[in-house]
Amino acid sequence: MSAINRQILLASRPKGEPSAENFKLVETPVAPLADGQVLVRHHFLSLDPYMRGRMSDAKSYAAPQPLDQVMIGGTAGEVVESKNPHFKAGDKVVGMGGWQEYAVVDADQRGVLQKVDTTHVPLSAYLGAVGMPGVTGWYGLVKIIAPKAGETVVVSSAAGAVGGAVGQLAKARGCRVVGIAGGPDKCRSVVEELGFDECIDYRQFTDLKAMSGALKAACPDGIDGYFENVGGMLLDAVMLRANAFARIAMCGMIAGYNGEPIPMTLPQLILTNRMKVEGFIVSEHMEAWPEALKELGTLVATGKLKYRETVAQGIANAPEAFFGLLKGKNQGKQLVKLV
Amino acid sequence: MSAINRQILLASRPKGEPSAENFKLVETPVAPLADGQVLVRHHFLSLDPYMRGRMSDAKSYAAPQPLDQVMIGGTAGEVVESKNPHFKAGDKVVGMGGWQEYAVVDADQRGVLQKVDTTHVPLSAYLGAVGMPGVTGWYGLVKIIAPKAGETVVVSSAAGAVGGAVGQLAKARGCRVVGIAGGPDKCRSVVEELGFDECIDYRQFTDLKAMSGALKAACPDGIDGYFENVGGMLLDAVMLRANAFARIAMCGMIAGYNGEPIPMTLPQLILTNRMKVEGFIVSEHMEAWPEALKELGTLVATGKLKYRETVAQGIANAPEAFFGLLKGKNQGKQLVKLV
Repeated sequence: MSAINRQILLASRPKGEPSAENFKLVETPVAPLADGQVLVRHHFLSLDPYMRGRMSDAKSYAAPQPLDQVMIGGTAGEVVESKNPHFKAGDKVVGMGGWQEYAVVDADQRGVLQKVDTTHVPLSAYLGAVGMPGVTGWYGLVKIIAPKAGETVVVSSAAGAVGGAVGQLAKARGCRVVGIAGGPDKCRSVVEELGFDECIDYRQFTDLKAMSGALKAACPDGIDGYFENVGGMLLDAVMLRANAFARIAMCGMIAGYNGEPIPMTLPQLILTNRMKVEGFIVSEHMEAWPEALKELGTLVATGKLKYRETVAQGIANAPEAFFGLLKGKNQGKQLVKLV
Repeated sequence: MSAINRQILLASRPKGEPSAENFKLVETPVAPLADGQVLVRHHFLSLDPYMRGRMSDAKSYAAPQPLDQVMIGGTAGEVVESKNPHFKAGDKVVGMGGWQEYAVVDADQRGVLQKVDTTHVPLSAYLGAVGMPGVTGWYGLVKIIAPKAGETVVVSSAAGAVGGAVGQLAKARGCRVVGIAGGPDKCRSVVEELGFDECIDYRQFTDLKAMSGALKAACPDGIDGYFENVGGMLLDAVMLRANAFARIAMCGMIAGYNGEPIPMTLPQLILTNRMKVEGFIVSEHMEAWPEALKELGTLVATGKLKYRETVAQGIANAPEAFFGLLKGKNQGKQLVKLV
């Protein structure tokens, strides 16, 4: 195999919003395989909000993405050549191949490459509803919010890959589910396609009072659980409508990703409402993945868990698609299709 | 019995800091007992920060203190007359008798009056280390922070009745314990008498950077657990030094009791540090009281749990003592001695 591998490297760290100059497209010949290695051709590259954090070198839970190396990222593809007895050409696999067309993988390392069955679940879904975003939603909902039937659960970024899963899993548990998303198209899709009870277009409610009022109207019995992807004013507004013993699963705070201040205005509500606010990173809870993937895979295979995808074409378009994701231009899972 | 009962009523609700005019001292004859009732003469009245919240009629977890009625409050005293078979004159009891010298108690109601044994534990301690403040500290530490030996626990209002218990219970569990208190006398007492490893005088560190630096110096391995009685800048400073998976038990936020804004500046740290922040009210966890009181009572009776008391004399001085408590003038448990 002597294919040319097109790769995207992190060229520099953004100040504020990331831009095209932070990335660099390079072409590298694919190296011959050593024993134990597998060559994977990527069909889909996953784009996720967490990548914005890795581009910075601020102290965080994960090491920053090194400069001049292939951007980190989840990938789904097909084995095209194997020197590993556990994999053969034609196997469909998911891994963390990064922003490139091919990856040479030391497949003996536990967990770096998983074979997946595409009989009933499309390959791309393993990067979304039956992958990291789905498990993220499952963990925050099931393990932190732990909703009871009849409770009200609010989900921000409801039209995103994570939020869509959260809402449908909560509906399956007998909850009233209210999404928050940007724009009428997303809101319509969240209600009509994903089956949320209501969806609030945050662009229509631009201050705390208005958003809090919209939440009051949509959640007449108050809010028992909140899955947080955004932060800032939305978090304040939800807290004003929280019931006693409400739980907030903090998954993301995209409102502050470019360094904007996003203070929590009334932390005393955590006390007066006896709330629990808990942050989590799904990769630290690998023990929960099998149970989560089993439920998510079954729901997708039987058509009970819906999801949307926004697909960019070709590795060169990955940065633009990523900027769009950060601005909420996608609906559902943002992918880059490479084959 | 035809004693005169001196009582303090809430006369008006404070705007900002409470003042003497919010209270009114009245004299009322003690009514004759009906069947099942007990007349208790109060020896000690407990003053606690939560009372400030009850003086306001803002939405909160508890109903506001009604105007023109006896201020709510825990009391310890002695039965002087009984028409209830379970109590006799001379019994030492604790209850919620309020700011008055005597209380007529319908003692058949479960939980309104408890007999206590003063052989090894002084009566006043049942309002402090072996009472609501002690159990409050126990619950937040044991059930929310759940510290492991070797971890670092920080306690604000460390010289108060709750904070003092938290720190000593954490020391007994093998933790490094750092208090935060106001002034050199309190800090010395917290270290020398209560056995904390260090105590930071917050008056010496008046901005976020300085306080965060002081915490860094006192907690070289970071902060794993924080017992919050204050809020505001202290909470921000602790969060900047929190370790991954740190737990914050929110018990009080006295910095905001008079309506001052106390935003949490960097809520995104809850996410990046995968923290848990949980508010609680100890009266909602009655199932935990027996275990807590058993440990606290044993520790006090054997001299292993130290506590301080600040004692005002006479019912007429209760309001001034309460204002002092809100300003941190007390050390340890603030009581009013009535007999």
